[in-house]
Amino acid sequence: MIQHPSYAVEPWSLRETELGLEVLGQSESVFALGNGHIGWRGNLDEGEPHGLPGSYLNGVYESRPLPYAEAGYGDPEAGQTVINVTNGKVIRLMVDDSPFDLRYGRCLGHERVLDFRTGLLERQVEWESPAGKRVKVRSARMVSLVQRSVAAIVYEVEAVDSELWVVIQSELVANEEIPRAAGDPRAAAVLEAPLRPEEHSSRPAGAVLVHQTAVSGLRVAAAMDHQVQALPSLKESVECFEDLARYTVTAMLQPGERLRLVKYVAYGWSQARSEPAVRAQAEAALTGAVQTGWDGLVAEQRAYLDDFWARADVEVEGDAEIQQAVRFGLFHVLQAGARAEGRAIPAKGLTGTGYDGHAFWDTETFVLPVLTYTVPHAAADALRWRCDTLPQALERAGQLGLKGAAFPWRTITGAECSGYWPAGTAAFHVSADIADAVTRYIGATGDVEFEKTTGLELLIHTARLWRSLGHHDSQGRFRIDGVTGPDEYSAIADNNVYTNLMAQHNLTCAAVVAERYPDRALEHGVDVEEAASWRDAAAAMYVPYDSAAGIHPQSDGFTTHETWDFAGTTPEQYPLLLHFPYFDLYRKQVVKQADLVLAMHLRSAAFTDEQKARNFDYYETLTVRDSSLSACTQAVIAAEVGHLQLAGDYLAEAALMDLGDLEHNTRDGLHVASLAGTWIALVAGLAGMREHDGTLCFKPRLPADITRLAVNLCVRESRLRVEVTAEAVSYQLIDGPTLHLLHHDEAVEVGEGAPVTRRIARIPVSTPPRQPVGRAPVRRE
Amino acid sequence: MIQHPSYAVEPWSLRETELGLEVLGQSESVFALGNGHIGWRGNLDEGEPHGLPGSYLNGVYESRPLPYAEAGYGDPEAGQTVINVTNGKVIRLMVDDSPFDLRYGRCLGHERVLDFRTGLLERQVEWESPAGKRVKVRSARMVSLVQRSVAAIVYEVEAVDSELWVVIQSELVANEEIPRAAGDPRAAAVLEAPLRPEEHSSRPAGAVLVHQTAVSGLRVAAAMDHQVQALPSLKESVECFEDLARYTVTAMLQPGERLRLVKYVAYGWSQARSEPAVRAQAEAALTGAVQTGWDGLVAEQRAYLDDFWARADVEVEGDAEIQQAVRFGLFHVLQAGARAEGRAIPAKGLTGTGYDGHAFWDTETFVLPVLTYTVPHAAADALRWRCDTLPQALERAGQLGLKGAAFPWRTITGAECSGYWPAGTAAFHVSADIADAVTRYIGATGDVEFEKTTGLELLIHTARLWRSLGHHDSQGRFRIDGVTGPDEYSAIADNNVYTNLMAQHNLTCAAVVAERYPDRALEHGVDVEEAASWRDAAAAMYVPYDSAAGIHPQSDGFTTHETWDFAGTTPEQYPLLLHFPYFDLYRKQVVKQADLVLAMHLRSAAFTDEQKARNFDYYETLTVRDSSLSACTQAVIAAEVGHLQLAGDYLAEAALMDLGDLEHNTRDGLHVASLAGTWIALVAGLAGMREHDGTLCFKPRLPADITRLAVNLCVRESRLRVEVTAEAVSYQLIDGPTLHLLHHDEAVEVGEGAPVTRRIARIPVSTPPRQPVGRAPVRRE
Repeated sequence: MIQHPSYAVEPWSLRETELGLEVLGQSESVFALGNGHIGWRGNLDEGEPHGLPGSYLNGVYESRPLPYAEAGYGDPEAGQTVINVTNGKVIRLMVDDSPFDLRYGRCLGHERVLDFRTGLLERQVEWESPAGKRVKVRSARMVSLVQRSVAAIVYEVEAVDSELWVVIQSELVANEEIPRAAGDPRAAAVLEAPLRPEEHSSRPAGAVLVHQTAVSGLRVAAAMDHQVQALPSLKESVECFEDLARYTVTAMLQPGERLRLVKYVAYGWSQARSEPAVRAQAEAALTGAVQTGWDGLVAEQRAYLDDFWARADVEVEGDAEIQQAVRFGLFHVLQAGARAEGRAIPAKGLTGTGYDGHAFWDTETFVLPVLTYTVPHAAADALRWRCDTLPQALERAGQLGLKGAAFPWRTITGAECSGYWPAGTAAFHVSADIADAVTRYIGATGDVEFEKTTGLELLIHTARLWRSLGHHDSQGRFRIDGVTGPDEYSAIADNNVYTNLMAQHNLTCAAVVAERYPDRALEHGVDVEEAASWRDAAAAMYVPYDSAAGIHPQSDGFTTHETWDFAGTTPEQYPLLLHFPYFDLYRKQVVKQADLVLAMHLRSAAFTDEQKARNFDYYETLTVRDSSLSACTQAVIAAEVGHLQLAGDYLAEAALMDLGDLEHNTRDGLHVASLAGTWIALVAGLAGMREHDGTLCFKPRLPADITRLAVNLCVRESRLRVEVTAEAVSYQLIDGPTLHLLHHDEAVEVGEGAPVTRRIARIPVSTPPRQPVGRAPVRRE
Repeated sequence: MIQHPSYAVEPWSLRETELGLEVLGQSESVFALGNGHIGWRGNLDEGEPHGLPGSYLNGVYESRPLPYAEAGYGDPEAGQTVINVTNGKVIRLMVDDSPFDLRYGRCLGHERVLDFRTGLLERQVEWESPAGKRVKVRSARMVSLVQRSVAAIVYEVEAVDSELWVVIQSELVANEEIPRAAGDPRAAAVLEAPLRPEEHSSRPAGAVLVHQTAVSGLRVAAAMDHQVQALPSLKESVECFEDLARYTVTAMLQPGERLRLVKYVAYGWSQARSEPAVRAQAEAALTGAVQTGWDGLVAEQRAYLDDFWARADVEVEGDAEIQQAVRFGLFHVLQAGARAEGRAIPAKGLTGTGYDGHAFWDTETFVLPVLTYTVPHAAADALRWRCDTLPQALERAGQLGLKGAAFPWRTITGAECSGYWPAGTAAFHVSADIADAVTRYIGATGDVEFEKTTGLELLIHTARLWRSLGHHDSQGRFRIDGVTGPDEYSAIADNNVYTNLMAQHNLTCAAVVAERYPDRALEHGVDVEEAASWRDAAAAMYVPYDSAAGIHPQSDGFTTHETWDFAGTTPEQYPLLLHFPYFDLYRKQVVKQADLVLAMHLRSAAFTDEQKARNFDYYETLTVRDSSLSACTQAVIAAEVGHLQLAGDYLAEAALMDLGDLEHNTRDGLHVASLAGTWIALVAGLAGMREHDGTLCFKPRLPADITRLAVNLCVRESRLRVEVTAEAVSYQLIDGPTLHLLHHDEAVEVGEGAPVTRRIARIPVSTPPRQPVGRAPVRRE
C-alpha cells in the first residue's frame, strides 16, 4: 500500500531531486504554498508541464446546480465548487528561440526544496535547450503568512556557457485551461472559464485584472508588480488584456551573467464591494509588498515561522521519516488555517480542488485539535467562521423540521452542498464535532471572551439541534434515530454510539456554559427550563451495548449484521465504495473509518479500559480504512490499549498519506486532516494526551522504534514541553503560569524550574488484533 | 378528501354530461381506452383543448440519463420514459369557416359515455360556431381487445338548422407538442419530439408514418385508412409529411344531413425489425381491421367483454357508487393487462405518463390477484414478461453482489430505472411479490406447464436472491438487513416483517416446486442441498415481535422510534414526502402505506387473530395513506378484524381514487393498482377470500350499507359464484369440476346443482381504531 516517496528524508524540509512528470500532480500538492487565504499549488514557474494548475482564494467559488434522478424535499439544489482564480505564479522563459519547457531539451539538474522554517519553495534547474544552449534557473516562491493578500517570487536566470538572449514573461492568467477531472466523484467538477472579465489595466512594471464569477457573483482582483536587476541590455514592456497581463523583460546574458526578477502578487476579493474597491484592495496589498521588498517578506516569514515552531514543534527521535512527516504536516496545517480568518478550512486546505474545495467535520475533529494547542487564535477563527454561518445552519435545521442549528456536511459558504443525504445531511454529528471543538478550545485557552460569545452561541444552537433530533422512548432513554455516524459504510442507523456520546457532551457543555452566563444565554432565549432539558437528555442518553459480545455496537443492531466477506474481496476492490453499492456496505459489518473507536478517543471517559480493549479488537477486524480519517484515530486507541507497534504503524500511515500518496489522490490536494492526524497520533496516541474538563492528562508510552518524543504545546497562557523516552516522561513549563496536569491518574503541578519527571512502567506485550485481510497498516522496513 | 365526481352513477357505464375544461386531464384518464398493447387517452376527437395528449404503445420508451449530484457504485445510469407515439385519434372539423373548438362558440350539449360492456367510448356534442352555425357531432372510439394492434373511430357530423360546408381532417400526428410537466417528481419527464421520421407514404384514403426513437432505437409505424359514406358533394384528399398524415373530406350538408366517417388505425413497433417489416406489420393489421369493418370490430369487442363479465363480474347491491366503481376498475384492469403479452403492466396502465410509464410491484401484488381469478391467461402473460427480463434481474443482482434475480423497482424493459436507491433498489420485496404472484397463479389455475417452466424459473432465481440477501445470526436466526419494505416512509431497515415473511414464502415455495420437478430444477443448477438451504432459511426466518407492546414492529426497532407529530401537521402538508425530508420520515413512526398490514393480508396464517387485531389497531394510528396502494389493504384487514364500517370506508376510498381524483393526479394516468384494489377490498375484504396452498377460503361479512355482494371467480377449470348477504353466503359452481373450499375453517364441497349455503354469524361491534388526525377515510353521506 505504501509507495516509497521520492523525497529526501530531512528533518526540516522536503526536497525533490528529480522531476517526475507522471507524479507532477502529487508534487504540486505537497509543494503547495498558502496562508489560509491564498493557496498556490506547487506548479512549475513556467506554468507547464503541469498536473493541475491551481491558484485559490479561500471562499471564492462558483455555484452549480445539484441534479437528482429523483429529487426529494430538502435536497440542496445548489452546489459550490472552488475555482481556479487568476494565476499569478506564471513566469515564462525563452532561451534564445526555445521556450524553457522541461518536456523538451535536457534537464541537467533539478531540485526543489520546501523549507518548513523559511516557508519558501526554492527551485534550481539546469537545462539545455533543444538547440544546445544551457541555462540555470533559480527561483524562490512564498505566500506570506504575515501579509495575507500577498505572494512573491524571486526568479533568476543565468547563462551557463554561451551568450544567451533571454525573454522573461511574467504573467497574470485568468481562466487557465485545466485538465478535465476523471470519473471519480471525489474530484471536483471542472468549471470552465469561471471568471468574467470586468477590468484590466497596466502600470509601468505591472498590471491588475478584475473578474467576476458568473453565478456566485464574486469579484476577484489580482495585481502584480516587478523589480528587476538593472542590466545594460535589459528592456521591459507591459501588455494587458481581459484574461492576461504580461510583464516582459529581455536581456542578452553573457556566460555566468544573471537576470534577476522579483515578482509581487496581491489578491483581493469580495462579494459585496465594488469593482474599484476590490481593485484598490489588491493594489494596496501590492504596494505594501513592494515597500516591504523581497528580503523584508522573507524576514517576516522566517520570524513568523520561528514563533510557530517554538510553540508547536514536535521532535521525534529514532524515526527520521516520522520526524519529517510531522513537521511537514504541521507546516501544511498552519498554511491551511493560519490566516483563514472568517472563512472555512477546507478538507484539502487550498492545495487542490478535491472535494470541490469543501470543508467537512474534518476541520473541527482533526485540524482544530492541532491548531488549538499550537496556533489557538486560528482555531478560534475557524469556529468564528462556523458561528458566522449560523443563519444558514438555523435555516437548514428549520427546513429539516428541527430546532437549533444543523451545520452542513460539506460547504464553502455555510450552505449544505451535500447531494446524497444518507452520507451527508444525516451525518448530524458535525454539529456535535463543532461543539466539541468549542469546548476543547475553551478548555485549552481559557478564552472567556470567546466562551461567552461565539462559544455560547454555538453550544446553544447545537444543543437545541440534539434536543429536537432525539426523543425519549417509553423506558425514558434518550434516543437519536436514523442518523449517520463518522463511518461512511453505515448510514441512517439508530443510536450511533459516537453521535449519541458527542451529543451528550454537547448538551452537557451547553447547559454548563448557559448556567455560567445566564444573562447572555437568556438573550438567546435559553431559560433554566431549556438548560434543564439539555441536562436531562444528556443524562438519559442511550448508549447501546451488546452485553453478550461484551462490546459496544457502532449503532443499534450493528453486531447482528452479517460480516463483510473480506476473504472474498480482492485488493483491487478497495476502496469498497467504488466497487460495491452503498446498499450492501450499509447493511454489513464493515467500517470505512474509525467511528466507535473515535468515540473512545473523544469521549474517553465513557468507556472502561476493558471495554476499550475489547471494542478496539472487535472493530480492528472490520475496519478497512478507505478513508484518510481513520489511521490516526486507530493509532491513538492502539496506543491506549497497549498495541504500541500497531500504533506506530497507524501513525506512519497517517504521516505518509500524502508524502507516499497512499490513497492515490494527493494530486487533488493534501489530506489536511490526515496531516493533522500525524500530530494527533503522536500527541494523543504516543504521549497519551486527553483533555477532561480543561485538564490535560498524559499516559505516554513509545513504540520500540521511537526513542524520544518531545511535544510543545500552548496551554492557557503557558507553553508546555512534554518529552517522552522509553523509560520516562518529563513535563516542563517553557513560560507562563504553573500548569496542573494529570500523569495517568496522578495530579502533577508543572511550574517554573526543573521539569517534572515520571517513570514509565513497561507493559506486557499482548497479541495485537487482526485487520481484514490485506488491510493491515504496512509495516515499514 | 373525497371530491364528488362529476360522473353519473350507473351500473355499467361512466357518463359525463358536462365538459369541464379544467378537469380535462382527469377525464382523459378515466375515459382512456386500451388493450394492454395500445393506449389512447380520452382526448377529444379534435385534439384540442386537451389536458395531456396521449397515445402509447406498451414498451415504446425513450432512454434518458439519470443524473446524480453524488453518484454511487451501482446507481442506474439510464432511465426510461414512456413516450407519446403517433396520435391516430385526431379528427379535426371545420364548420363553414370556423374550426370546431369547444373553447369558442357555444356548447349546446355534451355527453361522453364509456360503456363497460361494449368497450366503446361514445360522444355526442351539439355546438354553435362563433358565426352561429349549429352542428351535431357523434363519435364512437374503440381500441380492440381482439385485434391488438387496431383502434377505430366512427365520426359523424350533422348540420342542424342550416346548410353547412364541413371539412373533416383525419390525421396521424407525430411529435405532438405536449404540456411541460410540473415540478412534481412523480409526473413523467417530458421528452420533446422523441420520434425521428423514417418513412411516410399515403394511399387513396390513408397513410402510414414510420419513426424511430433517437436513443432507444425503437421503430414505430402508425397507419390509417378510412371509409366514408357517399354523399353527392363529397370530395376526398390525402396529404402526407414526415410528422403528419392527413385524410381530408369535404361536403356541403343540408340541415339534418350527416357525414359519416370510419377511421381505422393500426400500430406496429419493434426494436429489431427493419423499417419495411414494421411498416408492413402495421399495414397488415390495418387491412385486417378494414376487412372486419366497424360493425365487425364492435361485435368482436362486445363478445370479448361478454365473456369477460361472465367470468369476472362483481355485483354490489346497496351501494350504487361502489357497483359502478368496481366495474370501472375491472374494465380498466382488463384494458391494462388483457393483451400486454410479453410486456409489463405499468402502474398507470397505458392511460398516462405518470411514473414515467414504469411498472412496479403494484402489478404482482395488486393487479395480478384480480387477473388471476378473472383473466388468468393475462396473469400468466405478465409473469412471463417478468421471466423474459430475468437476464437483466440476474445481472442487477450480480452488480449488487447478490445471487439470483433482483427484479427492478421500476422499469419498462426490465432494467432498473430507480434513481434513488433507498426507496428503489433496496425494496427487494418486489422479487418476493413476483414469487407470490407465481404461486397464487399456480394455486388458482393448476397450470402445470406454467409451473414447471416460468414458475419454476422465477421461484428458483428469487429464492436464490433471498438466500444470498439474508444471513444467519449467532442465534441461528435468518435475518434480512438493510432493506426497504412496502412503506416508503421507512427505508433501509433490518428485518422488515413484510419482506421477511414474503421471502420465507418464496423460499418455501421454491423448495417445494424444485422438489416436484427435480430434473428441471437441476437444469437450473438446483440440487437437493440448495433446496434444503432454502427450507432451512425459511424455517429460521426471523420475524421481530415487540412482546412488551404485543405487536409486530414493522421492522427491527420501529416501535422504539418517535411517533410522527400528527397533531402538528397541517392538511396542506400531505402528502408528507412533498413537505418533509425523507430523513425525518424514515426515522419516525409514520406509515405511508400498508406494510405490516399488507403482510397480515398476504401471509395471513403467520399471525394469530389477536395479533392481527392489535397490529391493525396500532398501525391505523400511524398510517397516513399518502399512497394509493394502501386503502384496499386496510379495507381487507379492517374487515377481517371486524371493523366492517371502516372496511367499507376504505373500500370506497380505493374505489373512488380516480373517479373522485382523490390524490389530485389522475390527470397523469389511472391508479391501476387502486382500481384493482376495489376488487381486492370486496373479494379479500368483504368476502374474506384467502388462498392457502391452492385452497380458497372465505370468511364473508358485509358492512351495513351493502346488502348483497356477488363475486364471480375463475378457479382451476371451474367458474365459482360467491354470493353474500347480511345473513348468509352461497357458493355456486357455474361450470367445471367440483371445487373444495373452506368456509371459515369448515371444508365445503361445491359441485353441480344447488349452491352450498352457510349462515353468517353476527359479530359484536368493537370500537374502531383511530387514524392520524385528518387522515381517516372519508365517510360518504
